[in-house]
Amino acid sequence: MKKGEPLILVTNDDGITSPGIQALAETAASFGRVCVVAPDKPQSGMGHAITVNSALRVTPAGFKNVSRAYSCTGTPADCVKVAIYHLLDEKPDLCLSGINHGSNTSINVIYSGTMSAALEGALERIPSAGISLCNNNIGADLTAARHVTGTLIKKLLQIKADSRLCLNVNIPDVPLGKIKGVHICRQGHGNWKEFYEEHKGDKGLEYLWLTGTFENFEKRKTDTDLWALENNYVSVVPIHADMTDYKELKKVRELNISF
Amino acid sequence: MKKGEPLILVTNDDGITSPGIQALAETAASFGRVCVVAPDKPQSGMGHAITVNSALRVTPAGFKNVSRAYSCTGTPADCVKVAIYHLLDEKPDLCLSGINHGSNTSINVIYSGTMSAALEGALERIPSAGISLCNNNIGADLTAARHVTGTLIKKLLQIKADSRLCLNVNIPDVPLGKIKGVHICRQGHGNWKEFYEEHKGDKGLEYLWLTGTFENFEKRKTDTDLWALENNYVSVVPIHADMTDYKELKKVRELNISF
Repeated sequence: MKKGEPLILVTNDDGITSPGIQALAETAASFGRVCVVAPDKPQSGMGHAITVNSALRVTPAGFKNVSRAYSCTGTPADCVKVAIYHLLDEKPDLCLSGINHGSNTSINVIYSGTMSAALEGALERIPSAGISLCNNNIGADLTAARHVTGTLIKKLLQIKADSRLCLNVNIPDVPLGKIKGVHICRQGHGNWKEFYEEHKGDKGLEYLWLTGTFENFEKRKTDTDLWALENNYVSVVPIHADMTDYKELKKVRELNISF
Repeated sequence: MKKGEPLILVTNDDGITSPGIQALAETAASFGRVCVVAPDKPQSGMGHAITVNSALRVTPAGFKNVSRAYSCTGTPADCVKVAIYHLLDEKPDLCLSGINHGSNTSINVIYSGTMSAALEGALERIPSAGISLCNNNIGADLTAARHVTGTLIKKLLQIKADSRLCLNVNIPDVPLGKIKGVHICRQGHGNWKEFYEEHKGDKGLEYLWLTGTFENFEKRKTDTDLWALENNYVSVVPIHADMTDYKELKKVRELNISF
């Protein structure tokens, strides 16, 4: 790896063997030096989990077109922490997570390992993005996603260092020519209506599998990521880690809680 | 369980055997019917993880002073989903998570299993709170925390149903008489400076343990949870799941990204 070129940290939540991270690392490699630190197994739905009660193992990994890569037994957020605080001698210029096989729009951002890794980078003042393709199939065509990712990396490298910018980027699952453009917007308001499928296992033990259907609560609103994807735009939502609900502060004060 | 009395769903991230959840369930039981659904093992640092790639098991559990309790092999957020979508016939009036053995102030909210469970309740339109005592010791004195929790439950039961209110409540580790009151405030701005301790295991394998020191970036600000706890106030921060960084939207538009 040659110093002087930007250093791009690449991770994901589908695991180091997924086609999505290969596409991301290859695309990033045309803009600078790439270091891949990614989970050794799928970590979808891990949210912002970090490993606090056990140890991690980090193992050098062979990775096509990238000179430095590691697999890690931890979560996506762990991977970013390990990269910054243990593996790298210099601060990355960019932290990218993805390309995720499946969307991370609306409420899904809180469950997303992809986005937790990107946010972890931003907390370290590294401009970051999580990139997701709206197709859960591991064999999905990544051509358009590669193009979008390349354009995005070019823009993000123009941002001054020491920025906490974190972008949640979702790409519609259509050919490049069908993508209408970019929609910079907010996280749409929706939620999952869950259902647990029951399975009887050995000795009659009951197992529960989570299934659910997503509901968009704001179908008529056009300023959301959900609208963007439904209308073949790439959605770009800046996110942050301040979960304070400022609108509720007044209401909570009116409760007159006293101890 | 008698219908008519409020139904309070209780969970945590330290696991069903922790003294904190016992104290919470006992306190809640004096205000209504209690259903405990909690992880079968410690789940600290699990963030908003949910189990999507494997099955869950839910097992009835004996629990002091509570008629209905279950341990679950999943995460704190899983416990709330399983309770609402699988175990309970009616919607709880309140969802409480804790009492956590350790603080969940500032940035820790994103890593917190305790708060993810509370937020999961709020997403289902159940008024919710995560309650944490600023003492990591599993044997900490919970007397003051029980008192604060009781007062809080009384207030929260006055809120109209179908509310997405979610409170992050942290209690200073001092005797009740030393608690100065309540501070309704925002999430303070700070972060962890991490360090990985290296351990050599069998066959020379290297293991990494996460350690870190927390830094408060806003020591002079008085409107944060960090200030509240340092000054012996109970901090109460309303949180929500909208992670959009609205202040950054303009800046992102100025990047003129186009695909």
